[in-house]
Amino acid sequence: RKKIMITGGAGFVGSHLADKLMMEGHEVIILDNFFTGQKTNIDHWMSHPHFSLIVGDVVDPIHLEVDEIYHLACPASPPHYQFNPVKTIKTSTEGTMNMLGLAKRVGAKILLTSTSEIYGDPQVHPQKEDYWGNVNPMGPRSCYDEGKRVAETMMYAYKHSNNVDVRIARIFNTFGPRMHPNDGRVVSNFVIQSLQNKPITIYGEGEQTRSFQYVSDLVDGLHALMNGKYGAPVNLGNPQEFTVAEFATTIKEMTASKSEIKKLEKTADDPNKRKPDISLAKQELNWEPKVSVKEGLAKTIEYFRMVLLSTG
Amino acid sequence: RKKIMITGGAGFVGSHLADKLMMEGHEVIILDNFFTGQKTNIDHWMSHPHFSLIVGDVVDPIHLEVDEIYHLACPASPPHYQFNPVKTIKTSTEGTMNMLGLAKRVGAKILLTSTSEIYGDPQVHPQKEDYWGNVNPMGPRSCYDEGKRVAETMMYAYKHSNNVDVRIARIFNTFGPRMHPNDGRVVSNFVIQSLQNKPITIYGEGEQTRSFQYVSDLVDGLHALMNGKYGAPVNLGNPQEFTVAEFATTIKEMTASKSEIKKLEKTADDPNKRKPDISLAKQELNWEPKVSVKEGLAKTIEYFRMVLLSTG
Ligand SMILES: NC(=O)c1ccc[n+]([C@@H]2O[C@H](COP(=O)([O-])OP(=O)(O)OC[C@H]3O[C@@H](n4cnc5c(N)ncnc54)[C@H](O)[C@@H]3O)[C@@H](O)[C@H]2O)c1
Ligand SMILES: NC(=O)c1ccc[n+]([C@@H]2O[C@H](COP(=O)([O-])OP(=O)(O)OC[C@H]3O[C@@H](n4cnc5c(N)ncnc54)[C@H](O)[C@@H]3O)[C@@H](O)[C@H]2O)c1
Ligand SMILES: O=c1ccn([C@@H]2O[C@H](COP(=O)(O)OP(=O)(O)O)[C@@H](O)[C@H]2O)c(=O)[nH]1
Ligand SMILES: O=c1ccn([C@@H]2O[C@H](COP(=O)(O)OP(=O)(O)O)[C@@H](O)[C@H]2O)c(=O)[nH]1
Ligand SMILES: O=c1ccn([C@@H]2O[C@H](COP(=O)(O)OP(=O)(O)O)[C@@H](O)[C@H]2O)c(=O)[nH]1
Ligand SMILES: O=c1ccn([C@@H]2O[C@H](COP(=O)(O)OP(=O)(O)O)[C@@H](O)[C@H]2O)c(=O)[nH]1
Repeated sequence: RKKIMITGGAGFVGSHLADKLMMEGHEVIILDNFFTGQKTNIDHWMSHPHFSLIVGDVVDPIHLEVDEIYHLACPASPPHYQFNPVKTIKTSTEGTMNMLGLAKRVGAKILLTSTSEIYGDPQVHPQKEDYWGNVNPMGPRSCYDEGKRVAETMMYAYKHSNNVDVRIARIFNTFGPRMHPNDGRVVSNFVIQSLQNKPITIYGEGEQTRSFQYVSDLVDGLHALMNGKYGAPVNLGNPQEFTVAEFATTIKEMTASKSEIKKLEKTADDPNKRKPDISLAKQELNWEPKVSVKEGLAKTIEYFRMVLLSTG
Repeated sequence: RKKIMITGGAGFVGSHLADKLMMEGHEVIILDNFFTGQKTNIDHWMSHPHFSLIVGDVVDPIHLEVDEIYHLACPASPPHYQFNPVKTIKTSTEGTMNMLGLAKRVGAKILLTSTSEIYGDPQVHPQKEDYWGNVNPMGPRSCYDEGKRVAETMMYAYKHSNNVDVRIARIFNTFGPRMHPNDGRVVSNFVIQSLQNKPITIYGEGEQTRSFQYVSDLVDGLHALMNGKYGAPVNLGNPQEFTVAEFATTIKEMTASKSEIKKLEKTADDPNKRKPDISLAKQELNWEPKVSVKEGLAKTIEYFRMVLLSTG
């Protein structure tokens, strides 16, 4: 049995990961400041003897004894990470530095959840890990993108200078139950809008593309990455690519919604297309997504239906 | 008279800037950890009543009352910034955060010396400020490049969230007296090798280009930027472009050296070409370089001749 810390473990992805690790019988410690995470996501473990919750912030140093660190803490949706850009940068810089300092001190393995956003508005398609990206250092998305880029660089530096055993996942758009209903991401927005028969809001013409992965696939990928030997960045995503307009129609149909589709203004620096090349993950981790977008959407729609029922 | 802090003020550029600000009659406070800076660069001011030196590190918080901060602290030559990549990243992230926290608290203007390295191995030529760059987040140069990129992002974030009055200079290769003789940059290497009739070491075929500016021009540019109103990044450099091989020949001829020219292995991720588009600086700051590369080199060669005489 291992002692495993998950920073950001009360959030969407982190709580599913906690479920998997708890089911495997490990001791799980979650460190979360509840900025976008919720206690309800982990409530079902609170009385388990192998589970602990630390309410705290990764920008503060912390001294523990652990074997593995899954470092997820960071707001992930554009409205949330843009809410306080300075704090977002501190979370990625000071936060990652602290977790690397901890990993170095106790000899723990550490995995960073980086993002496809480090490719920016990509000029190669699909994106492979050796693409250096096209990122605006001075725009509304920069606090997140540049924060994650330098967090990757820190991982690389601690690996080379201090022999810290690192893992880096570049995660592409992921969805599923426990997404925050108000986090403003496209899946939660479109599903909730459809279920409420309110206008489905497309930013711009809807010709931009994204590729969507269901959360259980991501969790399996993170687990495979941590437990494998590969120490450089690996894309984790589902290559099933949609335009945002197609995606709106898909969700509208699946919910038998009467919503109209409404085009709003394009947001600044919104990437035009995004799709992972996952051959590296296949080769190094023997991993690939198993859940189709439609299957995943069906479960997610059910989840939000329940949320709406219970919140009215 | 203003109270002006210069971080990294005992270094090459910082000490020249200190000279200019002292001559203008300001109070100057230097904060430097002497990693690559030297006390001899500022010795001539030590007994002046308006001059103070704090031996300290920008990664530690510091509380002062100042009107302006020129934030230069950061090793600048590849061998120095690669010596301890983790420390280089801490200097750019924690260091810049501390200086921004200070600027915010006391309402000081703050100028960051960023770099042409944030353009990486550029795919547009010459480079304009709106180019997003082509940077490897995971390589030997990343600790410097990504550190400076996120430092720019921090400046942008504090400006937008906290109304901090910021200035960002993107400095292209600069040379002149007081460069550290062992810092491994091309100008000091080639000049010293030529003066000692030792082989001039070209990394790769010497077809890569750089554009070189004399330090007095840079200091004038930094001063104009701080005292102007323009708050977004501005290139400061001299567009006079040389291949490294041409540059070797130029220096060999100017020193009447008997050195042979020796090709060594190419270094990883070495940018292929670099040249500033300085129309923005001309327009916003009414600035352009005044010293030709040959004039600047003549002064620099004289300086290194003296250094070699005095150190033997
Ligand atoms: N979901 C995606 O599509 C996606 C895509 C790419 C990358 N990622 C990355 O995966 C990770 C998890 O994302 P998510 O979708 O679960 O987001 P989320 O917002 O649901 O979870 C983030 C968690 O981190 C916590 N947190 C934020 N700042 C913190 C701080 N300073 N200290 C302690 N805790 C803090 C939040 O409270 C929350 O519980 C993030 O690092 C994100 O960047 C997610
Ligand atoms: N010279 C160039 O060609 C060039 C080009 C682009 C950008 N720059 C930038 O200009 C600035 C000055 O460069 P330079 O050429 O004078 O280099 P330098 O190495 O001579 O000067 C850097 C100074 O900062 C000090 N320093 C380093 N880390 C510190 C820390 N953690 N705390 C306190 N002091 C610290 C060093 O001791 C030194 O005095 C740097 O920010 C550099 O990135 C220079
Ligand atoms: O168990 C630990 C060890 C370190 N750190 C923090 O991690 C950061 C980076 O650690 P490192 O050892 O690299 O830094 P140093 O303390 O040498 O600056 C520092 O701010 C530490 O406070 C931490 O939070 N927990
Ligand atoms: O209500 C919404 C929310 C998002 N989007 C678009 O959907 C895509 C994915 O946005 P999201 O915020 O989910 O993630 P991103 O990949 O941009 O970080 C982007 O092109 C957004 O402009 C949209 O059209 N309507
Ligand atoms: O006069 C000051 C004010 C702040 N800081 C440091 O600057 C950083 C950023 O300051 P900010 O006010 O943004 O951060 P906070 O203290 O709110 O985290 C913090 O680590 C402070 O310790 C400093 O060194 N000198
Ligand atoms: O002894 C040397 C030092 C540098 N260079 C080359 O000169 C250019 C400028 O190098 P420098 O380290 O001065 O600055 P950079 O612009 O690379 O940061 C690069 O292409 C180096 O590979 C070289 O050929 N020989």
